[in-house]
Amino acid sequence: MENAMPETSTQPGTPRPAAYTPTDRTVPTRSAKRAAYDHESVHSILDEGYVCHLGFVRDGAPVVLPTLYGRVGERLYVHGSTGSRPLRMTGQADPGLPVCLTVTHVDGLVLARSAFHHSINYRSVVVHGIAHEVTDPDERRTALDALVDHVVPGRSQDSRPANAKELAATAVISLDLNEVSAKVRTGGPNDEPEDLSLPYWSGVLPLAKGYGAPIPSTDLAADVELPDYLASR
Amino acid sequence: MENAMPETSTQPGTPRPAAYTPTDRTVPTRSAKRAAYDHESVHSILDEGYVCHLGFVRDGAPVVLPTLYGRVGERLYVHGSTGSRPLRMTGQADPGLPVCLTVTHVDGLVLARSAFHHSINYRSVVVHGIAHEVTDPDERRTALDALVDHVVPGRSQDSRPANAKELAATAVISLDLNEVSAKVRTGGPNDEPEDLSLPYWSGVLPLAKGYGAPIPSTDLAADVELPDYLASR
Repeated sequence: MENAMPETSTQPGTPRPAAYTPTDRTVPTRSAKRAAYDHESVHSILDEGYVCHLGFVRDGAPVVLPTLYGRVGERLYVHGSTGSRPLRMTGQADPGLPVCLTVTHVDGLVLARSAFHHSINYRSVVVHGIAHEVTDPDERRTALDALVDHVVPGRSQDSRPANAKELAATAVISLDLNEVSAKVRTGGPNDEPEDLSLPYWSGVLPLAKGYGAPIPSTDLAADVELPDYLASR
Repeated sequence: MENAMPETSTQPGTPRPAAYTPTDRTVPTRSAKRAAYDHESVHSILDEGYVCHLGFVRDGAPVVLPTLYGRVGERLYVHGSTGSRPLRMTGQADPGLPVCLTVTHVDGLVLARSAFHHSINYRSVVVHGIAHEVTDPDERRTALDALVDHVVPGRSQDSRPANAKELAATAVISLDLNEVSAKVRTGGPNDEPEDLSLPYWSGVLPLAKGYGAPIPSTDLAADVELPDYLASR
């Protein structure tokens, strides 16, 4: 199968014009044409995702957990219980907790004539950096709104804000978008010329996210209507 | 927002009957009701995914990369170029490379009356363990078939197998399913009783994976028909 994994970067070539400066950790060697560093590409991939995978190191071993996130400009936020391990570790670490935050969309299954060239079409963003606990009350409010609005834009203004007890139970961490890369694969399979006459179907099976009909809570009052921001999906 | 992140496990309760033995790393404290350890739950979540997020540690910092995977019984396989960083690191590590492999499905957006109780419905599997390079030729073949069949079941028998050159360029690593947990959230929002009369819509917006119409390669011969295993999606 075609290698979906970035390769070791020992001699990065000349980076193309980019908003995020490529580093040893964000420049792939062989599939460099799939890498992008511009804000627009990175932001659009991040904004379309619901869940990121947050990696951190505990007792020398990696841990990767799915979690919600939000973005405000060039800063990402993750939240959780104050007892949550990575959040607690971030609060205790000085100057913060090294993390890697990754968001991936799968856009299609790529079927080649050869097993080797099978692949997927995808868009991913990988963010390396140091997570910091957010303690400023205003920034915490901003972050929590962003987390809600990331799931459903506009929803933070159409729900009850967190009260003091809820705020006290919630930890928020931030991660700045500095060492960031996007990687995108599009198009059909890259079959070898000598394989083109083989009798196997080749092409792409597109994948797309679909929304079902909203399911109201069983205890929802009859006079509460479905908001426009949900009806439009 | 409702905490989507597992919490620190300092005093795991009595584990329920399970196929995988819970450990300190796989038992959440507060949302323990969402954890599952039976083979069936874990396998079904793994088998439905296309991409896993593989975490490893490089120079003391976490790295999380999306990559394809396959499952054969109680063993997962990941592959890539022989120059790929985690694959090369695995081959050089003795007795292997500590990794964390996570697969997540997002099934729905959970909208509560309160911002705090917003959440998502999801199914995830987290696997902790040591990745080993697979060097046995037969197991490598089995693994590569599993990787292709994971994307499209049956496809490995309907494509050209890897040749010697392709095999030489491909590294395969394995990760046994020992320290594993699934976590699943289903159902509607958990609003506070005093919030039930608030005028905000609450419920679930379901998400589902959808397939588009297959797109044949532009150079596909006219007499090659769409295989049944694609037409049925």
